[in-house]
Amino acid sequence: MSSQIAVIEIATPGRGFQEISAELQNVVTGSGMVTGLCHVFLRHTSASLLITENADPDVRRDLENFISKLAPDGDPSHVHTMEGPDDMPAHIRSVLTCCELTIPIREGRLALGTWQGAYLWEHRRRPHHRRLEVTVIGD
Amino acid sequence: MSSQIAVIEIATPGRGFQEISAELQNVVTGSGMVTGLCHVFLRHTSASLLITENADPDVRRDLENFISKLAPDGDPSHVHTMEGPDDMPAHIRSVLTCCELTIPIREGRLALGTWQGAYLWEHRRRPHHRRLEVTVIGD
Amino acid sequence: MSSQIAVIEIATPGRGFQEISAELQNVVTGSGMVTGLCHVFLRHTSASLLITENADPDVRRDLENFISKLAPDGDPSHVHTMEGPDDMPAHIRSVLTCCELTIPIREGRLALGTWQGAYLWEHRRRPHHRRLEVTVIGD
Repeated sequence: MSSQIAVIEIATPGRGFQEISAELQNVVTGSGMVTGLCHVFLRHTSASLLITENADPDVRRDLENFISKLAPDGDPSHVHTMEGPDDMPAHIRSVLTCCELTIPIREGRLALGTWQGAYLWEHRRRPHHRRLEVTVIGD
Repeated sequence: MSSQIAVIEIATPGRGFQEISAELQNVVTGSGMVTGLCHVFLRHTSASLLITENADPDVRRDLENFISKLAPDGDPSHVHTMEGPDDMPAHIRSVLTCCELTIPIREGRLALGTWQGAYLWEHRRRPHHRRLEVTVIGD
Repeated sequence: MSSQIAVIEIATPGRGFQEISAELQNVVTGSGMVTGLCHVFLRHTSASLLITENADPDVRRDLENFISKLAPDGDPSHVHTMEGPDDMPAHIRSVLTCCELTIPIREGRLALGTWQGAYLWEHRRRPHHRRLEVTVIGD
């Protein structure tokens, strides 16, 4: 077994989803690994990494709508509001989802299901620059 | 270090929990690994993998009841309703929990705590066939 | 590649957050690994591991406040109340967050972002003794 590392940089236009499956597959392909694991880690606390349905964009719209109601911007109970009304909600969304993913590699491909896509979910309203650390381990 | 892979197929009878700790332990035992990590990945976006209490079944009943109220079937705000009233709630439940787990291996056993069990949580009301990719890494 | 394992024991004073970034870095430093992954697993179902903002303590206060309202102690709908009004809420909080984390190692350091800290989140009101299994894999 050996490992390969890479950095992926994503410019987000503000709140919403950006698929990163192709970027991750590029790292796996470049590593030459056939079987193993691909780990991706987001170095930020106001965005998330997740796997969800990659077909109907309404799924992401409904996810955004759900979480916006669960952790609404401008909630008057929040004390941490330094960076605006979407600051603390972004941290809550990040904790309820996750900032890292591990995806198996089989035959040189990410073994995602037919309807699975890996996404970066930006929770801040303004554009951000997000950095992902990728670690591929395998043979 | 080396790796071993396996596939576990689970037929679910519909919404609810199925413990997969024994199936995972079987893969670990078959791999001959003594120390390392066992990663399991669910190739679907309408079910989850999780670790929770394995003793009192009321814990799973209360979890199901909690999430059913948090993301109720038939929520009229959902746009993605192609496969019925439990379609979008299943995606929300999947995102709020997770589709993959990594469990340490110590002395050839999954190092779960005394009260921990690994579960597949089916979120769709109808029976489904679920596929898990297992990767064991270690010595 | 090789692996190193360690156990971290944490005594919690009751509900709240305890940063474990330094404890994890100590394990990584002791392992001598330069590049790889650090996996940490909590052997309990009523506490969580998570990564969140490490600067303003109000973030943790707002997270605690949020989850206390989402899964309130003493919810009369809970059936599993053996260990008191914070028993089932602790399991719900654990499932909504997570019990394990994988953090990349780069140049011998955990590659956490500037504002990221790794935390143990105790969900029970009384003090507990928590055990973490750490697995470092790399070169």
